[in-house]
This record gives sequence, C-alpha cells and structure tokens, in this order.
Amino acid sequence: MKKKGIFITFEGAEGSGKSTQIREAAKFFRKKGREVILLREPGGTKISELIRKILLDRANQGMSHATELFLYLAARAQVVEEKILPALREGKVVIADRFEDSTRAYQGFGRGFSLEAIESMSRLVRGTLIPDLTFVLDVDITKGLARGGRHDRIEWEALSFHRKVRQGYLTLARKEPGRMLVLDTDQPVSVVKQCVLERLQRVFGK
Amino acid sequence: MKKKGIFITFEGAEGSGKSTQIREAAKFFRKKGREVILLREPGGTKISELIRKILLDRANQGMSHATELFLYLAARAQVVEEKILPALREGKVVIADRFEDSTRAYQGFGRGFSLEAIESMSRLVRGTLIPDLTFVLDVDITKGLARGGRHDRIEWEALSFHRKVRQGYLTLARKEPGRMLVLDTDQPVSVVKQCVLERLQRVFGK
Repeated sequence: MKKKGIFITFEGAEGSGKSTQIREAAKFFRKKGREVILLREPGGTKISELIRKILLDRANQGMSHATELFLYLAARAQVVEEKILPALREGKVVIADRFEDSTRAYQGFGRGFSLEAIESMSRLVRGTLIPDLTFVLDVDITKGLARGGRHDRIEWEALSFHRKVRQGYLTLARKEPGRMLVLDTDQPVSVVKQCVLERLQRVFGK
Repeated sequence: MKKKGIFITFEGAEGSGKSTQIREAAKFFRKKGREVILLREPGGTKISELIRKILLDRANQGMSHATELFLYLAARAQVVEEKILPALREGKVVIADRFEDSTRAYQGFGRGFSLEAIESMSRLVRGTLIPDLTFVLDVDITKGLARGGRHDRIEWEALSFHRKVRQGYLTLARKEPGRMLVLDTDQPVSVVKQCVLERLQRVFGK
C-alpha cells in the first residue's frame, strides 16, 4: 500500500537551532524507511532561490513591505507546485525550514498585514495544503540574533520587529495547539530534541 | 500653486506601438512645462528590475501561475512606493508602460485568476491610486507578435493565451470607458497619435 505523504515544518528565528532539529526529524523518518525531502523557505527551486536572493540581500533595504510580502508568496507558490505537492503525492516526507507561519509571523504580526489577507492570498499559494505538524523553536530575541548572527536583510530589522514576530508565533501556536508545538530553546539542545522526537513518535509512530 | 500630479498608463501587447505613443504623450506634457517621468512595468526601480528579470527570463518557463502573479504585484508595489507616489506628490506627470490593467488582462483573463482577488491584492500594492487615463493599444495578436517579436517568457505563451488577454483588455475598457480608451492600431501610427493627443488635450488641455 502506498504511504501517505507527510508535511512537517519548522519555524522560529535564526539562531533558534532549526537546522539541528530538522536533521533529527529527518533521521526519525529515514529510520522508519521513509524517503525524506528537506527544503528551506524561501527557496527550494531555481526560481524560488532567485527570489530568495532579492529578499535577503541587504542591498535591498528600501524594499516596500508589500513587495516583501508578495515575494515570499511568489517563492512559496513555486516550491509548493514544483516540489512539495509532487513529493507528498509520491508518499514522501517533506520537512521544510519555514513555511506559511513565517509569513503570518513576519509579514502579519511583524509588518502589520492582516492575517485575513495573508490567509486568502495563501490559498492561491498552496490550495488546501497545511502542515501535518509544525515545530516553533522559541528563542529569546537577543540570544537568537547573537547565536544566528545578523546576515540578511530581515535579520537586520529592529529588535522591536523581531519581538513582534516572536509574539506572533506564540499567538499563532495558541490558536492551533494541535498542529503547532512551541519548544523553549533555552533548554539544552538534547532536551529540545527529545521533545521533537516524542511528538513525532506520538503522531507518526505507528 | 503646486500642480496636481497626473498618472497616465499605456496598455497593450508587445508590438502594439506603446513606446511611440508614450513618447508623444510625454512631448505633450513637456510642451506644457510639466515634468514627466517615464516608467516601464515590471521595472522602474532596482528591486523591480531584478523581479522583471526573473519574470521574463525564458529559462523560467516552469514558473507557476501564482508565482507569476505575485512577482508582478511585488514589482509594482516597489515602483508605486519608490517612484510613482513621490513623483505624483511633487506634481509630476508619470507615464507608465503597463500597470494594473496588465495584471487584470494577463493574470486575470489570461491565467484565470479572479478579478476580485486581483483587486483586493492590488489595494495592498497601490492603495487608492488609479490612473487618470489609460490608453489600450489594441492589436491583432498575430500582427503584434510579428511586429514586437517573441523575446520573453510571456511573449512565448500560446496564441490562445494572447487572445484571452486581448479580449480581457477590451472587456475591461468597456467597463471603464471614462478611464480607458481603446485605440485600433491597425490604423496608421499618425492617426493613433492624433487620437492620443486629442484625448490628452480634452482631459488635460486647460
């Protein structure tokens, strides 16, 4: 019998340790014999990576907020159509470093676009696709930026922006406790990993 | 007394002779002592030109329709905020080679996105800004493509797509006869020019 595709996303600021936990999640599924596709957003296709370059280039600091919003949606639409949906149809496990919750947190809570507008545009981007499970790696803003460094245009935003984004993630997670799990990354990495594996085991263990 | 900004757009397929008529319109306003800014869409700012490159590159033929739509909106949002609104505030005349009617015609009528969705996203792009006057240079599809050549990703679309776009423009113009003037480019260029100047004279002559 063909396996059902699984779509997992990891959210959280740079420096929150997403990459480490994504590797653990991938290992979990591979051990179970599943084929795993790893993607980062924005990116994951040739066109999406071109868009990513425009979005993150610090030379583009004069970017309008609407331009930023539409570029993220454009990059996502491409990776959904070209990579995510085909992989899920083939029964693969797709693990994405960021997805729509990033747009809600950064462009919604951070920039002030309404969540309703983002929702209706997102339906053009991904149809009815919603992650099966989303891990939100919550990190103290100043610690995260110190750990992750400030490399790109978004990371160079003011602290007040990053604070709104963090609160945004927490608000979103409270509204969807079934899908979104917040993990406190002030704990040791090994504890965070245990929490990730426990949840994966509980939802996909059988 | 400070002059009121004027926003004029030219629409129509490649090969419809937009550039020639835009030059005439610019001359009309300059003769009246107005400062004129010429823009092309997508483009007109550094960021918008980067987006234009992605949009028109024939290497990107696998682009999803939603990605295309969002990239056009992204490029437009930037040129509106960075160039068009400031110029209009300073009382200048802005003449744009393509604007929102292109999105309605190409992504709406051509690709099938609803005009309602395009309208609500466009409000994030340009607020309440609407062209004072729009010239639609109507051209027989095969003649236009022969004249304009087929250089970019959009021009390489199927004839059936270009036919839908043309009908789209005509439908839009019927709905807004006050703003949109359709000009039959099967007439000699000098006649088209006369029609453009006549309308400009009538609306902005005083």
